[in-house]
Amino acid sequence: MKLHGYWRSGTSFRVRVALALKGATIEQVPVNLLEGEHRQAVYKDLNPQGLVPTLALDDGTLLSQSPAILEYLDEVLPGPKLLPDDPVSRAKARQLAAVIGCDVHPLQNLRVLKRLQNELGHDKDTAFAWAAHWIEEGLGALETTLSQDAWEGPFLMGPAPSLPDCYLLPQIYAGRRFGAELHGFERLLEVERHLLALPSIQSALPENQPDAIQA
Amino acid sequence: MKLHGYWRSGTSFRVRVALALKGATIEQVPVNLLEGEHRQAVYKDLNPQGLVPTLALDDGTLLSQSPAILEYLDEVLPGPKLLPDDPVSRAKARQLAAVIGCDVHPLQNLRVLKRLQNELGHDKDTAFAWAAHWIEEGLGALETTLSQDAWEGPFLMGPAPSLPDCYLLPQIYAGRRFGAELHGFERLLEVERHLLALPSIQSALPENQPDAIQA
Repeated sequence: MKLHGYWRSGTSFRVRVALALKGATIEQVPVNLLEGEHRQAVYKDLNPQGLVPTLALDDGTLLSQSPAILEYLDEVLPGPKLLPDDPVSRAKARQLAAVIGCDVHPLQNLRVLKRLQNELGHDKDTAFAWAAHWIEEGLGALETTLSQDAWEGPFLMGPAPSLPDCYLLPQIYAGRRFGAELHGFERLLEVERHLLALPSIQSALPENQPDAIQA
Repeated sequence: MKLHGYWRSGTSFRVRVALALKGATIEQVPVNLLEGEHRQAVYKDLNPQGLVPTLALDDGTLLSQSPAILEYLDEVLPGPKLLPDDPVSRAKARQLAAVIGCDVHPLQNLRVLKRLQNELGHDKDTAFAWAAHWIEEGLGALETTLSQDAWEGPFLMGPAPSLPDCYLLPQIYAGRRFGAELHGFERLLEVERHLLALPSIQSALPENQPDAIQA
């Protein structure tokens, strides 16, 4: 397997977290979003949407969309399961993941922030404030959900990291990048601390990717 | 089980399609988005995000986020399976679903179109054009993916409706509502025709819901 992705892309980052939690190391192929490689024909042949990541299987099968890739990796790779066994807990795990995967990240994606600027004429500050708004709203709902569900940490679903933790780490990272106010999200920040303390996670962090650009 | 939803909400609609394909009938509880019922405390106690739908199980468990609800229903209800058996086909089904569930629908959601108007000062036409843009881009990528995968219909994954078909029907419906150009999407429109020809689907359609408002 090969993962085509970008060091700072939240969806690439979440797949790297899953691989790290599974104890898997696979080849990474950087796609330079700043230089527009994702919009060029050679990449769009792999991924008609022109979005990262794409998982290329050894037989040539191409999988895109990180929620689908994450479920696939959990189904086929050895290592700890990212989804619990019983249907209600599985639904809860997918629910927490989808709050970020559907209602936060897509609204602060690069192409959306670019459209706000290039087509709708807003400045970068307005685009970043737009991103921060949705991040605060979504993470706020997650924080409330955890408190209502009598959350027992240290991870989102309990004593071990699971599917939604793969989504959380990149979303908090993006929250800081876009200037979101994360101060009130004590439970989520505690989960983040525990995730970052896992030795395996280091390989998944944006700054540790070969294509990372130092600020 | 009870489904709290809204007749014209795409995410409520996709859950109703899944229920219809499974041959299940459950109680529906309308949440009037036009009157802001989703933002009132009585609903936010069920769903901290204040979004529809919410699935209330008989034991009081509350599930939100339609991708999680759809997988849950497929796991626990009898009837035809919405997901194939082998991991690669499951990933493909989830990939097609996520193109709509992550990269199209969230960008044309009511709260997003409202923010474009109320906070960023755009008019309704600009908000609708924003929605139409993302719908055309996402459905275009789906149409290309189907052609690359040597699509054999009549449904998205072959001879029977499956998970991504639940997403497609509401997205095409929303595409018409927002004035998206659907003309080139011949395969997708063919899938739509076959879905609409299923007798079971009639119960899922927006105009057949008790809370539907005639235009």
